[in-house]
Amino acid sequence: MQISAKDLSNLLQGEIVGNENVVLHTIAKIEEGKEGALSFLSNLKYEPHLYTTKSSVVLVNKSFTPTAKVNATLIRVEDAYRAFTFILEKFSAVANKKSGIAQSAVIETEIKIPESTYIGAQTYIAADVEIGENCQIYPQVYLGDGVRVGNNVTLFPGVKVYANCVIGNNCIIHAGTVIGSDGFGFAPLPDRSYKKIPQLGNVIIEDDVEIGSNCSIDKATMGSTIIRKGVKMDNLVQIAHNVEIGEHTVIAGQSGIAGSTKIGRYCVFGGQVGIAGHIVIADGNQFGAQSGVSSSIQEENGKWFGSPVIEVRQALKSGVVYRKLPDLEKKLNELDKIVKEKK
Amino acid sequence: MQISAKDLSNLLQGEIVGNENVVLHTIAKIEEGKEGALSFLSNLKYEPHLYTTKSSVVLVNKSFTPTAKVNATLIRVEDAYRAFTFILEKFSAVANKKSGIAQSAVIETEIKIPESTYIGAQTYIAADVEIGENCQIYPQVYLGDGVRVGNNVTLFPGVKVYANCVIGNNCIIHAGTVIGSDGFGFAPLPDRSYKKIPQLGNVIIEDDVEIGSNCSIDKATMGSTIIRKGVKMDNLVQIAHNVEIGEHTVIAGQSGIAGSTKIGRYCVFGGQVGIAGHIVIADGNQFGAQSGVSSSIQEENGKWFGSPVIEVRQALKSGVVYRKLPDLEKKLNELDKIVKEKK
Amino acid sequence: MQISAKDLSNLLQGEIVGNENVVLHTIAKIEEGKEGALSFLSNLKYEPHLYTTKSSVVLVNKSFTPTAKVNATLIRVEDAYRAFTFILEKFSAVANKKSGIAQSAVIETEIKIPESTYIGAQTYIAADVEIGENCQIYPQVYLGDGVRVGNNVTLFPGVKVYANCVIGNNCIIHAGTVIGSDGFGFAPLPDRSYKKIPQLGNVIIEDDVEIGSNCSIDKATMGSTIIRKGVKMDNLVQIAHNVEIGEHTVIAGQSGIAGSTKIGRYCVFGGQVGIAGHIVIADGNQFGAQSGVSSSIQEENGKWFGSPVIEVRQALKSGVVYRKLPDLEKKLNELDKIVKEKK
Repeated sequence: MQISAKDLSNLLQGEIVGNENVVLHTIAKIEEGKEGALSFLSNLKYEPHLYTTKSSVVLVNKSFTPTAKVNATLIRVEDAYRAFTFILEKFSAVANKKSGIAQSAVIETEIKIPESTYIGAQTYIAADVEIGENCQIYPQVYLGDGVRVGNNVTLFPGVKVYANCVIGNNCIIHAGTVIGSDGFGFAPLPDRSYKKIPQLGNVIIEDDVEIGSNCSIDKATMGSTIIRKGVKMDNLVQIAHNVEIGEHTVIAGQSGIAGSTKIGRYCVFGGQVGIAGHIVIADGNQFGAQSGVSSSIQEENGKWFGSPVIEVRQALKSGVVYRKLPDLEKKLNELDKIVKEKK
Repeated sequence: MQISAKDLSNLLQGEIVGNENVVLHTIAKIEEGKEGALSFLSNLKYEPHLYTTKSSVVLVNKSFTPTAKVNATLIRVEDAYRAFTFILEKFSAVANKKSGIAQSAVIETEIKIPESTYIGAQTYIAADVEIGENCQIYPQVYLGDGVRVGNNVTLFPGVKVYANCVIGNNCIIHAGTVIGSDGFGFAPLPDRSYKKIPQLGNVIIEDDVEIGSNCSIDKATMGSTIIRKGVKMDNLVQIAHNVEIGEHTVIAGQSGIAGSTKIGRYCVFGGQVGIAGHIVIADGNQFGAQSGVSSSIQEENGKWFGSPVIEVRQALKSGVVYRKLPDLEKKLNELDKIVKEKK
Repeated sequence: MQISAKDLSNLLQGEIVGNENVVLHTIAKIEEGKEGALSFLSNLKYEPHLYTTKSSVVLVNKSFTPTAKVNATLIRVEDAYRAFTFILEKFSAVANKKSGIAQSAVIETEIKIPESTYIGAQTYIAADVEIGENCQIYPQVYLGDGVRVGNNVTLFPGVKVYANCVIGNNCIIHAGTVIGSDGFGFAPLPDRSYKKIPQLGNVIIEDDVEIGSNCSIDKATMGSTIIRKGVKMDNLVQIAHNVEIGEHTVIAGQSGIAGSTKIGRYCVFGGQVGIAGHIVIADGNQFGAQSGVSSSIQEENGKWFGSPVIEVRQALKSGVVYRKLPDLEKKLNELDKIVKEKK
């Protein structure tokens, strides 16, 4: 990024106040501003920083009027936060884009890799893999036999995709994540040992999915484990075999979903949530961090907390009483004594 | 897989009903059947699908008689589920088997690698490693100095094994799992900083163990962290230093076992279970998901739930009352008022 | 390690009792002793093993006097445990040290790598990376553009460091850990899908930090996620974007800290602890395993347990009553009946 305040203001169709020739080459939070940086002010809690920031330019809302002297150049726009995000995207897209096919990449069979797609060093591509346009396949990625990758996909370093898994368009998968490891399926034998049930399915990841780092998504025993369009998943999440996650559901870090469970659309999971196997969760349900769900939820749009979960307001009320349990017990015993003595 | 219904029936010593010339080339769940696929019917809950499935052949139990018209060829066998699993195994063993030593593999010292063993691309094998017959060492694996790997072992892409760890026969370790990282041992110093306690032991994994993806199994401070014969472990499991897991114990995803704890044989852990350090769990104990265990369990074959755990039936009963705590408190306060007024 | 009892005793300024010519080449716990091994006795619980151990040499405290016949050579020192740890360190430092730059390492731009630093096979170093003296960069590591690594740093196999992250001096990061994956930031859109908020910051890891295997530490949206000097982190830990962990805080396995939270100095986290986002935890607070913290803690040096956490003694007391909840409910209902009948 290298842009003058004037050019930036034109780009954003903003209104400039102050030195329009100052040049920007980085971005910073308003409270951590430095020369040459662009910041923004949206939440007025941060207004005091506007008068002390070292950033060269600050985006502000048109509706905002400073109440003290400002050193930075201001660019007044309709929505400062949105404008800032827009700039971030431009900036990050340009900064990170790689190209070419690294010499140390190993590609087992002759396949067509579009010119717009980057294959990083030490990446391994097994037989009969398909890769779309505009992909960024970082170093040290593994794509097993028959894997299919759509367009505009980013696979960060060390992502491992087992054979025959499918990744849709515009997906982002972070470093160390494993797609398609075997489902956890074992049949108990009469001698109390276990026999592996072969896992022959795959994982299908639809379009616009983002998956964090060091996640594990198991393939189906037969058929597919399915991550639907627009799902967002944080780090260290476990998705077991034959699970299906509905569109635009969001799952925070270290949550786990056991085998064959179907999660609806637009659900929201806090961190470290656990969902039992073979159940169904309806659309729009939300789970507080560390919740545990052991049976199906048929109603939509509930809010839940606890292990096992109960409705969140009820859970919070029970939590308050829980802290007082020793007092309650004492009071109950006193009452008991009084009443029994009277009898 | 490419086999006619007739040949398959002979292989299974089954009894064929319908077109015996149809050729199978894949497998499918009965409810997701397609032409050329083999399915099975065991649980009669799925019987309605038998009459609509598009699969070409369905395995059924000898004891079963259809109650409507079936389009698929049937093969009647003693136990349809077992026969199907047998076929799955044959199919998956053939489908995935790789061979040779990839050119981009780095092998530090001259070692004897059996012809039956596959070493994938970009795999690193340090000094003085031993590898047995019939192994599948996928790409991007790391085997540190002096690692020993038995026969019939599969290490999926990106498995990392630290120096001097030992992996027995017939083990399967999934992508991204780390064997032998340092135990978490630090001595507090007078200035409240910590000093690392060197971790010099190893990890020993006995025969027939399967470990999921992205697990972390730490080496012992001295001696060995031991995973006994037949243990099955899901993804993202943490096993700390000097832990010992007894034979044929099963551990579901995201569970963690703290340092120096000894787990008995035939135990079963749900997901996200946590076990404290320096305790002993007797054989055959079972723990519900998200349970937390802070002290030793000497009795065998208990069933536990909660954090800290209590006996499962008791835990479920307490859980029911927990939801009503605000009502209980209210009732208690009313009673208290009545009784105190009377006094 | 290859040292005579006599030389070792001189090194430790100890007092030797028994055969001073015996040669040591390994170490062992006193209860698992073997010929040629060094053991120690500090905790007198282990004293009986002294009289049966097969170790050749045992370090004991000067204050200790055997009460039976000892076969091993004794070396009497001020503090046997400390002396043993000292020897462990010497031994492990020598045993593991590697050198050189592997031919299969890919280094994108010409950078100065000190002779004292080892770069392992199949490691990838992107553009404009800086690496200090005396580092051990194991095979299959990924260092993104502009990463800075200090002196005496060990990065175990498969560590992935995203662009522009900074690792201080004397840090140790275990296999499979990801530093700098994108923070989990998404803005909800009117159609209930989500839009990625670009993550442009980095991760700064200060000096003397150790991080376990398969951890995920996300970069900041802007600015830095900061792990302060001396922090020790176990395996499978999740640190979200813009988090700051204070000096010498210790975090056990599978714990997670959500976005923008600030953790104080000298805190101690048990395993599987979860901390909510956007809160502040004061110095010296300790959290029992599986605790969940949803709001800021301003007092220092508290001890907490439960989800949501309460003060640990209170939590343990409430836990005891929790087990008796069904009895309490029954007693309350009986009382209620008696009292209401009397009315």
